[in-house]
Amino acid sequence: MTATGLLAAITDLGADKVRGGYSRHGFDRVELELREWFTAEAERRGLSVRADRNGNLWAWWGNPGPDAVITGSHLDSVPGGGAFDGPLGVVSALAAVDALRASGFKPRRPFAIVVFVEEEGGRFGVPCLGSRLMTGAIDADAARNLLDPEGVSLAEAARGAGVDPARLGADPEALAGIGCFVELHVEQGRGLTVPVGLASSILAHGRWRFTFTGEGNHAGATLIEDRRDPMLPAARMVLAARKAAVNGARATVGRVVPVPGGTNVIASSVEVWLDARAEDDASTKAVVAEIMAQARQAATEEGCGVSVTQESYGDTVVFDHELRDRLSTVLGGVPALPTGAGHDAGILAGSVPTAMLFVRNPTGVSHAPEEHAEPEDCEAGVAALATVLEDLAS
Amino acid sequence: MTATGLLAAITDLGADKVRGGYSRHGFDRVELELREWFTAEAERRGLSVRADRNGNLWAWWGNPGPDAVITGSHLDSVPGGGAFDGPLGVVSALAAVDALRASGFKPRRPFAIVVFVEEEGGRFGVPCLGSRLMTGAIDADAARNLLDPEGVSLAEAARGAGVDPARLGADPEALAGIGCFVELHVEQGRGLTVPVGLASSILAHGRWRFTFTGEGNHAGATLIEDRRDPMLPAARMVLAARKAAVNGARATVGRVVPVPGGTNVIASSVEVWLDARAEDDASTKAVVAEIMAQARQAATEEGCGVSVTQESYGDTVVFDHELRDRLSTVLGGVPALPTGAGHDAGILAGSVPTAMLFVRNPTGVSHAPEEHAEPEDCEAGVAALATVLEDLAS
Repeated sequence: MTATGLLAAITDLGADKVRGGYSRHGFDRVELELREWFTAEAERRGLSVRADRNGNLWAWWGNPGPDAVITGSHLDSVPGGGAFDGPLGVVSALAAVDALRASGFKPRRPFAIVVFVEEEGGRFGVPCLGSRLMTGAIDADAARNLLDPEGVSLAEAARGAGVDPARLGADPEALAGIGCFVELHVEQGRGLTVPVGLASSILAHGRWRFTFTGEGNHAGATLIEDRRDPMLPAARMVLAARKAAVNGARATVGRVVPVPGGTNVIASSVEVWLDARAEDDASTKAVVAEIMAQARQAATEEGCGVSVTQESYGDTVVFDHELRDRLSTVLGGVPALPTGAGHDAGILAGSVPTAMLFVRNPTGVSHAPEEHAEPEDCEAGVAALATVLEDLAS
Repeated sequence: MTATGLLAAITDLGADKVRGGYSRHGFDRVELELREWFTAEAERRGLSVRADRNGNLWAWWGNPGPDAVITGSHLDSVPGGGAFDGPLGVVSALAAVDALRASGFKPRRPFAIVVFVEEEGGRFGVPCLGSRLMTGAIDADAARNLLDPEGVSLAEAARGAGVDPARLGADPEALAGIGCFVELHVEQGRGLTVPVGLASSILAHGRWRFTFTGEGNHAGATLIEDRRDPMLPAARMVLAARKAAVNGARATVGRVVPVPGGTNVIASSVEVWLDARAEDDASTKAVVAEIMAQARQAATEEGCGVSVTQESYGDTVVFDHELRDRLSTVLGGVPALPTGAGHDAGILAGSVPTAMLFVRNPTGVSHAPEEHAEPEDCEAGVAALATVLEDLAS
């Protein structure tokens, strides 16, 4: 089966009629359907699927065991995201297994395809939630209490997906069994000019929630001079974020929620999420500090308050040099490039040798319905992944 | 029964646990429950209730007929609104009927309490929807196609409420039967320093939806210089709106919806609603024109587009002098004050003699959970309304 043929099978699952693209989020109905679809596809190939304590799925080719070769990615999306970010890594792993089986290959090392839960953080706000839980990068109690926009906790959502919320948390046993992890992913910029490349590093990045508070009131009856409107410092913070993103740093506001959100209502509060990334920890923190300072000044000047919560943070990731060199060698030399996008591979890289394969993105658009990879490039990705996995698992 | 006693009976209906206050919107489950509650209260008083072709409820004391004395208000709210805006006028009408019946009064003119649908426009975007439909101030086809945030059309919502969507629209027969309309309402500023006052005028006001379009993309992988991020012109437009609100004009952005709205996603579009009001038509249009010009410039500078849709507009309303003088006389002289808030009474004022009674708001806060009127002031409002209705219906 080709990667694009497998993707075609899930083309209707989670299609977002309002935003376009796909909305597939951790433990929601759509993700659960995708998990069922994955399980059926894996079992059709003779793999045995089990969920770990955090709900991540592991499809084992043969028996689980130590020093395993692991590949995979995630099936969730950002709201209104593309078809490739996440699923391409999963379907390429299935297609690579097909290719290896067809060639008569049998892995000598334990071998599994993993599907991580809620990589995008589109529902509970924390990206790479499944891998963060497994590695202990997020506190289990804090995670259980994460709320989705409807007020459903991760604990409740996990229970609804058949995952015992009491068992969520660090999984040193699962982690210790991983010999290496290779994630294939669609590239998310325009940095790759050949079909397949390798990742060198991931920018330091995090998410901060700014809550601006003022006084909710009537949009018509309240004199301008009587207002404490939190929308104004929120708008100023959006502009400050752009201004602070210098020297290759990125600062983005893509999510804004005024409360109560009525047209004829001065908001009582406005929540603004900042996504900030830069080459290293110090630069990222400096960008965020500058935006916070501007936000505080704007709030004060408008008679409002502001509080800031860090929702997630990850320092710069440099992928394992030895593994990367080995992959590059068996692939006959492919370019390695840094990325501004976070990945489960970036989380695992702190614990185990990890590498990423990128498939070319002709426009560089990602996290949007227009995200695309050409079918030939996807098959080149499958071939590269099969080559790499054969080498690693021999 | 007192007005506050009647309000207490609906204190749980539509309580918004996320925003605080109440979220009650046209033809939603909560408004339907409120309509049932109103119908039962009216029938308990011997009034006969019928819905007109637009779903507005009319509770007749005696037989319907021409030259009728009409009082009433609405039961819906803004998202997270207060307990008084709307319901106070409805419960005060019921309480005034109680007082009049207790005194042995029988109206000589036809007499009804009206409850208008969706006065706030909190669901379908157009304020005073029920009264606009009745007076023909909104085109019936345009109204039928209005969508709520979930994509449900007014036609569908009306059908769900037992209102035939094909019959929505101008209702000249109902309108011709109105001799005069008196709406009691909580004041929404701090302009009233005695328990009860009268309205003199309503500011010209309207709603405009600005849609900023750019290119959705990845918040980490997209270089700053490659971005066309519609959040930036949207933020600049928020600031331009405040700056344009001079000489007593008001310009407010209380509702912002980025699409897709993911933290790690550069928005592909951002919808921003502008509520603008000023003393007269020319001033209001000038404020909006200035904001549009600034929005277009900001969009162009950020490589984005912007389109603007007027969702509603109403010119300055000056309430009927004769009716106001009559009310003032029977009430022994009460102050008359202008308001920046729109009302169904403002829509009806274009067709029939119309007046408004205001009940003091000690803080001036409205459209917010903190909206308040003291029980004594509410009862003074009921007494004033009963006096006025007795005079008019004799």
